[in-house]
Amino acid sequence: MIVERLVILGVGLIGGSLARAVRVAGACRQVIGWGRSPGTLQRALELGVVDEIEPNLASAVRGADLVVAAIPPGAMEGMFRELAKLLGPEVIITDVGSTKGSVVAAARAAFGALPPGFVPGHPIAGKENSGVEAADADLFRCKRVILTPLPETSPEAVAKVRALWECCGAEVSEMGVEHHDTVLAATSHLPHLLAFTLVDTLANMDDNWEIFRYAAGGFRDFTRIASSDPVMWRDICLANRVDLLAMLDRYNDGLQQVATAIAAGDGEYLYRIFGHARAAREHFLRLEKG
Amino acid sequence: MIVERLVILGVGLIGGSLARAVRVAGACRQVIGWGRSPGTLQRALELGVVDEIEPNLASAVRGADLVVAAIPPGAMEGMFRELAKLLGPEVIITDVGSTKGSVVAAARAAFGALPPGFVPGHPIAGKENSGVEAADADLFRCKRVILTPLPETSPEAVAKVRALWECCGAEVSEMGVEHHDTVLAATSHLPHLLAFTLVDTLANMDDNWEIFRYAAGGFRDFTRIASSDPVMWRDICLANRVDLLAMLDRYNDGLQQVATAIAAGDGEYLYRIFGHARAAREHFLRLEKG
Repeated sequence: MIVERLVILGVGLIGGSLARAVRVAGACRQVIGWGRSPGTLQRALELGVVDEIEPNLASAVRGADLVVAAIPPGAMEGMFRELAKLLGPEVIITDVGSTKGSVVAAARAAFGALPPGFVPGHPIAGKENSGVEAADADLFRCKRVILTPLPETSPEAVAKVRALWECCGAEVSEMGVEHHDTVLAATSHLPHLLAFTLVDTLANMDDNWEIFRYAAGGFRDFTRIASSDPVMWRDICLANRVDLLAMLDRYNDGLQQVATAIAAGDGEYLYRIFGHARAAREHFLRLEKG
Repeated sequence: MIVERLVILGVGLIGGSLARAVRVAGACRQVIGWGRSPGTLQRALELGVVDEIEPNLASAVRGADLVVAAIPPGAMEGMFRELAKLLGPEVIITDVGSTKGSVVAAARAAFGALPPGFVPGHPIAGKENSGVEAADADLFRCKRVILTPLPETSPEAVAKVRALWECCGAEVSEMGVEHHDTVLAATSHLPHLLAFTLVDTLANMDDNWEIFRYAAGGFRDFTRIASSDPVMWRDICLANRVDLLAMLDRYNDGLQQVATAIAAGDGEYLYRIFGHARAAREHFLRLEKG
């Protein structure tokens, strides 16, 4: 038994999947779901995602060993302010936010100082559909979870959160907050921004129906991430804006050079860039499999 | 029997898959493969992709009813110039190029005038791997093939090429050359350019190994098209440069507005764009399934 009373704040795709996974693993005595929407909470209970639901936050976290904030990044600071009033220092708190600098700043602001029991975390997993209906006990299996503990963070708290994710089948690693945000801006936040913008741009064209009609499988894969939750991605873009805008600048430079080459008929340059991209992607896929 | 002697020039993924599909359908008496690489040609024979191989172009097309140019867009004009010397006016010629304006211009230049038997075509199908090894008889099943006949084109030739693709399980439609190139710039050429550029940009970063290591499934889907053949995509970008650069301009405007919103902390704007993109994509997927 890793945790006695696990409280999951926000039973959407990630919170709901975590609840299902730890219940399958038998890792907690009790998994409590809390959320602002009574309908979602009720659905989580009906679907057997959590053991119990509790719409009152104070009642939900009473007696908790570990509290997981699985809410949009923009809602973190408000939540931490409420938790600061409710939780003793012995309670471990973690989150699942896709940006870590903003979450750490929110925790510092809300708690006054970073509590030793607070372990910033980020499971790198998701799927096309969001919401509790999509919750899946296997969502984290063989996926990476990054923890970004700070000097203030207690090693025992880190070990507990690590054990929780490992029992869901995840591979847990640790890195610095800033490094996390740079890496994720590159591989996740920027691609989402590019995909949302492409679909929006095409949907604004006059013959958009024709355009989408002749789209092939490549387009479907490329735009899959444009079906992600707009509230979450709005929050992520704002929370990680410095790293994201820096990556976007770098990307725009590359795109500008490619556009110049196309206009100039410079096939050699295009061949080099495209070949390099293909080789890099294939190298990366081999590393993943190896 | 749709065709007696079908000659496929270039037995890569598309040419090889067409050969396999028509052979499975029993639509041709003989399927001949021609190509510049003796190794690929030999492999096509060993894999049972074609009935016969013929490395000499004049011998390959002798007695042909229908010749399919399944070669990179950049090689079309040179090929048409050779075919102009070898083929009588009764022979139907089609191609599988992803851009149609450039192929029509190449045909006009090579043949002097557009031959009535020339039917520009584009199967909208592909996969992550290229080459004859990836050839698949089911590649075109339920996929769209666009034909862009011109006023000069003989209706009989169009009917024959349509029948050939339909026997592979494809849905054939017809549209104007310019319309084709605009639509494909939006849904195929621009996404490929964006994906190639993203992977190249990330691969040029100092900690590229770390970056790719923490990439998740969304990144893999988003960049799948960056594993496409660099020669073909170089040619496509150059062949459709006017439409592609116009689409890229439009896209850059959208990206600039999103960047401005992020810098200004304008969450409302981001939410609107992201929500619109998600709704448009889901609407389009529903149309596809319906």
